[in-house]
Amino acid sequence: MNERTVFFLSDQTGVTAETLGHSLLTQFDGQQFRQVTLPFIDCDDKALEAVEKINAAARDDGMRPIVFSTLVQDEFRAICRKADSLHLDIFDAFLESLEEELQQKSTHEAGRAHGMSDIESYMKRIEATNFALANDDGGITRNYEVADVILIGVSRSGKTPTCLYLALQYGVYAANFPLTDEEFDGGTLPDFLLTQKQKLVGLTIAPTRLQQIRKERRALGQYSSAQQVRYELREAEKIFKKYGIPQIDTTEFSIEEISSRILNSTGVERRVRP
Amino acid sequence: MNERTVFFLSDQTGVTAETLGHSLLTQFDGQQFRQVTLPFIDCDDKALEAVEKINAAARDDGMRPIVFSTLVQDEFRAICRKADSLHLDIFDAFLESLEEELQQKSTHEAGRAHGMSDIESYMKRIEATNFALANDDGGITRNYEVADVILIGVSRSGKTPTCLYLALQYGVYAANFPLTDEEFDGGTLPDFLLTQKQKLVGLTIAPTRLQQIRKERRALGQYSSAQQVRYELREAEKIFKKYGIPQIDTTEFSIEEISSRILNSTGVERRVRP
Repeated sequence: MNERTVFFLSDQTGVTAETLGHSLLTQFDGQQFRQVTLPFIDCDDKALEAVEKINAAARDDGMRPIVFSTLVQDEFRAICRKADSLHLDIFDAFLESLEEELQQKSTHEAGRAHGMSDIESYMKRIEATNFALANDDGGITRNYEVADVILIGVSRSGKTPTCLYLALQYGVYAANFPLTDEEFDGGTLPDFLLTQKQKLVGLTIAPTRLQQIRKERRALGQYSSAQQVRYELREAEKIFKKYGIPQIDTTEFSIEEISSRILNSTGVERRVRP
Repeated sequence: MNERTVFFLSDQTGVTAETLGHSLLTQFDGQQFRQVTLPFIDCDDKALEAVEKINAAARDDGMRPIVFSTLVQDEFRAICRKADSLHLDIFDAFLESLEEELQQKSTHEAGRAHGMSDIESYMKRIEATNFALANDDGGITRNYEVADVILIGVSRSGKTPTCLYLALQYGVYAANFPLTDEEFDGGTLPDFLLTQKQKLVGLTIAPTRLQQIRKERRALGQYSSAQQVRYELREAEKIFKKYGIPQIDTTEFSIEEISSRILNSTGVERRVRP
């Protein structure tokens, strides 16, 4: 059976179309899709080029592609709609209801969703990213007093990517500190963490999963041994319990989910909105 | 005039609902919205709690809220739909067309869009993030031979957040190298970059904007002076031109846009999909 092709059309990056389309397509088990993003469709030529690609896929696949469109400008939408496809258009679906509700015509102008109209929010995300980098892995600075949240956990429990995602997506100031033998030996946390105890969130992970992740980094040796992994996780958990630190199990979650759960469970306010 | 409240309902993180809603709302100029995300609605109680919050906002605002819902499970959707709101549901809007097209019933199961079903893609994103960190700012390692793309530009032209976004969102291996007096004095790039010339992308930015960004970091001194900023940008541009390196002007773009434009202009394939 041929794979069906899915197109994401946008006059911007295509992130909205991809996110929407992906949510819907995951509702269909066992289907394989070839995904193609066509961003920055901002002139007739690019719209016509998109139509050609969609029609070519229809011919090659022997079935019409599915198109998720977030195009805003009517002229390009009209062109793309003519392609041989199931055309799903988020503006068609929702804009009329919104216009009615808000009693206002929409602008139909492109380039607004991720535009730099909001320079302030750009700066906040950059600053939060710099904060995450400077306060990664317990290092360089320890500006924990300005942190929104401080993640603690053993090596490879997901601290660094989560902090960076919290910064880039939400502008949240996230630091992280690794738990190692220094903490395990005494079963205590250092004072500079304890004074910020209300900001601490512990990351946990299933031993087998952690072992798998560590083996990617270093296949042999104690670091990725079952015994070591179990020891570290057990000691980390003792510390979380001792101080009443909330825990999030990252085993089955994506970076997005871990980040969202941290905001949700701590009540930390995002500083920017997507 | 009261602000209208907008709710994003999800049985997952709410990222899809937020992205979709934001795209649509930016089409309405001059409206102010108070945005509330209610993620992880995965039981009757949480659905009922959401209804209460929506109804409370309707009372407080004196107008019904707008609700963007990506809830999948019918029982929770039925509850949330009863709230006093304009209820916009992405599954209602598109799922029937998709079921018809694919000749398959959708699963109506939650937790699929960002699930860890795809462990491989999680690992790829983590590895790409580690690569970006190790190859940030010209530092630590210089594994440029395995990079997908290498960003070069002056300090604060947007290199680091763009590399991290490329890693987290697309699993792309992005390194970056800062252009400083070492390059400007001779007007040349070091050999370890020139051997990877086809991977280089130059970031440029308007002088006034760069000055503004640098002043956030260091208000006084040469670093953020108009003269210095103009000098560095001029010299960087000379280098881009000399070697025929493609340039992206980051002045008016968000991190998402810069990243998407880099993929689009270089043809670098994303290693994962959202």
